[in-house]
Amino acid sequence: MGTFSGRVEALRSVMRSRGWDAVIISGSDPHSSEYVSPRWRQVEWLSGYTGEGDVVVTEDHAGLWTDTRYFIQAARELLGSGIKLHKMGVPDQVPIPQWLSSHFPHSGEEPTVAIDGLCEKMSFVDSLGKGFNVVDVPNLPDLVWEDRPEAPQSTVITLGDDQVGWSREHKLSWLRKKLMQGGCDAILLSTLDEIAWLLNVRGSDVEYNPVVISYLLVTMDEADWYVRKYPFRRDSETEDSFYELKADGVTVKDYDDIALDLASLAADDSVCRLWIDPATLNYNLYKVLEGCSPDLELVKGRSPVTLRKAVKNDVEIAGMKEAHVVDGVVMEKFLWWLERQLSLDSGITEHDAAVKLSSLRAEVEGYRGDSFKTISAYGPNAALPHYSTPVTGSALIEPRGLYLVDSGGQYLFGTTDITRTVPIGPCTDLEKEDYTLVLKGHIGLARAVFPKGTAGCHLDVLARDPLWKSKRNYGHGTGHGVGFYLNVHEGPHDIRQSFNRQPLMPGMIVSDEPGIYREGLFGVRHENLVLVTEAGDNGFGSWLKFEPLTLCHFDTSVLVPGLLTQSEKDWLNAYNKRVRDTLSPLLGKEISAWLLEKTRPI
Amino acid sequence: MGTFSGRVEALRSVMRSRGWDAVIISGSDPHSSEYVSPRWRQVEWLSGYTGEGDVVVTEDHAGLWTDTRYFIQAARELLGSGIKLHKMGVPDQVPIPQWLSSHFPHSGEEPTVAIDGLCEKMSFVDSLGKGFNVVDVPNLPDLVWEDRPEAPQSTVITLGDDQVGWSREHKLSWLRKKLMQGGCDAILLSTLDEIAWLLNVRGSDVEYNPVVISYLLVTMDEADWYVRKYPFRRDSETEDSFYELKADGVTVKDYDDIALDLASLAADDSVCRLWIDPATLNYNLYKVLEGCSPDLELVKGRSPVTLRKAVKNDVEIAGMKEAHVVDGVVMEKFLWWLERQLSLDSGITEHDAAVKLSSLRAEVEGYRGDSFKTISAYGPNAALPHYSTPVTGSALIEPRGLYLVDSGGQYLFGTTDITRTVPIGPCTDLEKEDYTLVLKGHIGLARAVFPKGTAGCHLDVLARDPLWKSKRNYGHGTGHGVGFYLNVHEGPHDIRQSFNRQPLMPGMIVSDEPGIYREGLFGVRHENLVLVTEAGDNGFGSWLKFEPLTLCHFDTSVLVPGLLTQSEKDWLNAYNKRVRDTLSPLLGKEISAWLLEKTRPI
Repeated sequence: MGTFSGRVEALRSVMRSRGWDAVIISGSDPHSSEYVSPRWRQVEWLSGYTGEGDVVVTEDHAGLWTDTRYFIQAARELLGSGIKLHKMGVPDQVPIPQWLSSHFPHSGEEPTVAIDGLCEKMSFVDSLGKGFNVVDVPNLPDLVWEDRPEAPQSTVITLGDDQVGWSREHKLSWLRKKLMQGGCDAILLSTLDEIAWLLNVRGSDVEYNPVVISYLLVTMDEADWYVRKYPFRRDSETEDSFYELKADGVTVKDYDDIALDLASLAADDSVCRLWIDPATLNYNLYKVLEGCSPDLELVKGRSPVTLRKAVKNDVEIAGMKEAHVVDGVVMEKFLWWLERQLSLDSGITEHDAAVKLSSLRAEVEGYRGDSFKTISAYGPNAALPHYSTPVTGSALIEPRGLYLVDSGGQYLFGTTDITRTVPIGPCTDLEKEDYTLVLKGHIGLARAVFPKGTAGCHLDVLARDPLWKSKRNYGHGTGHGVGFYLNVHEGPHDIRQSFNRQPLMPGMIVSDEPGIYREGLFGVRHENLVLVTEAGDNGFGSWLKFEPLTLCHFDTSVLVPGLLTQSEKDWLNAYNKRVRDTLSPLLGKEISAWLLEKTRPI
Repeated sequence: MGTFSGRVEALRSVMRSRGWDAVIISGSDPHSSEYVSPRWRQVEWLSGYTGEGDVVVTEDHAGLWTDTRYFIQAARELLGSGIKLHKMGVPDQVPIPQWLSSHFPHSGEEPTVAIDGLCEKMSFVDSLGKGFNVVDVPNLPDLVWEDRPEAPQSTVITLGDDQVGWSREHKLSWLRKKLMQGGCDAILLSTLDEIAWLLNVRGSDVEYNPVVISYLLVTMDEADWYVRKYPFRRDSETEDSFYELKADGVTVKDYDDIALDLASLAADDSVCRLWIDPATLNYNLYKVLEGCSPDLELVKGRSPVTLRKAVKNDVEIAGMKEAHVVDGVVMEKFLWWLERQLSLDSGITEHDAAVKLSSLRAEVEGYRGDSFKTISAYGPNAALPHYSTPVTGSALIEPRGLYLVDSGGQYLFGTTDITRTVPIGPCTDLEKEDYTLVLKGHIGLARAVFPKGTAGCHLDVLARDPLWKSKRNYGHGTGHGVGFYLNVHEGPHDIRQSFNRQPLMPGMIVSDEPGIYREGLFGVRHENLVLVTEAGDNGFGSWLKFEPLTLCHFDTSVLVPGLLTQSEKDWLNAYNKRVRDTLSPLLGKEISAWLLEKTRPI
């Protein structure tokens, strides 16, 4: 019996002893995080699968539910685990609630389904509907996962007003104004990047995401931050941070006290109407709040922090621009290094390249880590949009075809995310055509001008149209929001075909990353981050446009010139010139000369 | 005291005698029609305003609520009526429910609001919310409108299977299958074009819309059509139609019996679950159904006919193509005639041109009327997208600048809708530039290729992008569905920025009509109808494209060539060639020669 099937069996024996018919193991943490710290990698522990997804175990079945992005990875990682892949995002998908309903046909007794309510959103549990006896077991994985890691306890730092533009006092008073406007007298925040933004704190509790595992309860005159503190975090920098927060009126409380405090929230009559965000609040705390005094009214709505955080202020924008200059220097050094290694035939692997790129970023003052795991993918590996470069045994980068590198840095003054697809030798006609068409799509979106009120789903087609015209496409969104020295994925805006009504607003940052993926052959993706900026008013309305933040040249050597219009070539030449003009003074003589060649106008 | 203020005062005196605090006069009819027959022009009767909109009258206020399309017209038509314009679709809009709430601040007694429940959708009355005593007075306008017209009683004709593809037996059995799938045993249809489509009947109860005012109740073994019959409709063709319907199992009942029959619907136990469409059913009948036996369950959902009707079958498609050939001949004859009249300096007005165009259509065998009132607009008048050409005193068409004509025909075999903007003499640079950019947008959408599942709101930007790039725009949607010898506007699909999730499907017909409007100067709109067709499958998915149905050349004389790419010019040349090749054999020698000149490649 393999490791994973043994763990599933251990879970089943707990289920039998407790009378549970099914257990749902969530792939998330109590804070609806996209990336989770090791403590909440219960799906990986149980199944061996490392992507996003949830597991359901019954007496006679164990299944993983995940979407199109992870089908190939899941099939590979689940091999031999006995866990079956349930595909979501396909026409005949059967989501967990429907699957459970059909697995336990209506009979006399309701089947009992155990969940870890801390790791489930209230909306998911609602979707289970009637017909199940839902048992909430906080920290359910503890029952079978003996050496489960502790919650993280990284160093907590604070950022000054000069670094973030808005002080935490300013942000708290802004939030309280929002509460008054919404007729509320308190708000519970559980999303980690919202809390980090509001309090101007950063940590490294989650890999790649500079956040601190915590909850924040803000009333009209108090702000209680629930976070693991002494004896867990005992370094002096964290102590200094906590001291500074206390001085600013933020009470630092113990992470595990949140449920107890919420249970007595309405007792002293100071809180009557509490704002909660049903899209992110976990089920366990929601039930606690529901069980409060009848005097406590729960007001459900999107947290006002979501949008405010996405609209960067002048200091944040200046920081992001600085981050993209230093990151551009890193990228050009890297691309130069790569070309040189290939010419020297030094046998560089995908992993070697990823390590080199991170080490170049690490030389930057203010570097705090990568913003996600570098995707360093050669040839057919790049056909997986979410390819995970293995540490050992990764592919050799050979001097032909296309190499794709998608990476980013966390700096004290900003976050970056860039993809370049690099022709590293002779390319096939198909490679050249795809490379050109994807760049044409990238430019189509980058050059957009649009009236205020336009949402990302209205613009998505600008990146796809050149591909669609030749019946090619990519199966992911075109753009995601990016935080300021925060998560590399953030909402509420995006650029994709879903019907997200959030308009793009000046100060928002979003990626522009069309691609194309040919299984067994190669992949192409061209990604810049762009800033939404004002483009003036006239009789037809108020206009917006995108300003590229990313600074790194696009290779022009394999472009099929006949596929680009003159105005697209003009855009490309102007962009490459801007990259050269900005970065050359910061690069050595040799790399500058090389960049001059790379950015010759076409 | 003017006519309209006198009518408002008469209404107020009824209000006083009955103790009503407010009356809502709906601009619609009992069937949620976009165009209404004279009997339901109560808003026009009361206010003099002829566009879409609703009126609210209280003791101290009378207001008209309408949207951006009608602001200019409403301001003009309401002049002197004492009725105030309430603008909707603007950022600070106050819809009727909110306005009523603020007009009658909370006090002891609920204000009484009288409505004609026949002419209000159930969703609107729901939106009034609590706090009002709503009184439903069917045919409320009768109380003040003495010479109110009778309901229409036009001739009812039937269409054969060879004309429509699907027989009414086939459609009824398809609908009953849908009912079974939806767990229902009956459906109530009240939308006129859905009923006309299902029964293969047509009439002319509503100007431009070939429909018959009626309701249709379909159970698993009966189909009851509630329609004004003898003594109202007494012509032999109608009698023949009713006879044919009866032979096909459709019982023709009296229009006014619908409420009574619905009230006893559940009495005989044959109907337990009735499908109703909350988006279109009127409030009065909804309340009747709600008051039925508790055994009657109302299942709310979009009528299945809506989508089925929009996806044309092969016979309908062939008919629509034929309609566009004959309509193209009409249009080319008209444009030739117009150019000739201008060269002869014969003093043609906008109205003269509209009359000429209708008379040319009337020469076509199978012509049943126009599909909407022709917009014949010269110069600044074309800056109003919904310009209504006056019968007397319309503008002289002078031999300079741009003339816009938006028109369509109803033929037994299809419906057309076309806009051409015609340079009829020297044009300014701005006119040329706008003319070119709007055509560039038209071509951008016309050439689209897109995967199955794509909705109109994803494609809308393809028509706008060329305008947006120079910060120009238009304030209406880009495309609407079109019926088969039915309403010129139909859903459920469209191409606009609203978040309509309905995907475009093969067999749907939609307009492609970007524009630009310069107040006081001119207007440009280029409109073709296009058919959604399959474009093949490959590893990236199943692909769709648009096939232009409309056949009428685009004038190339004022195009700014530098604003078009070669592939846009190629599209335009190929389109104009197709128009010429198809229509020339059907036009006389003189017009053919003229068309050859007009369609010379650029």
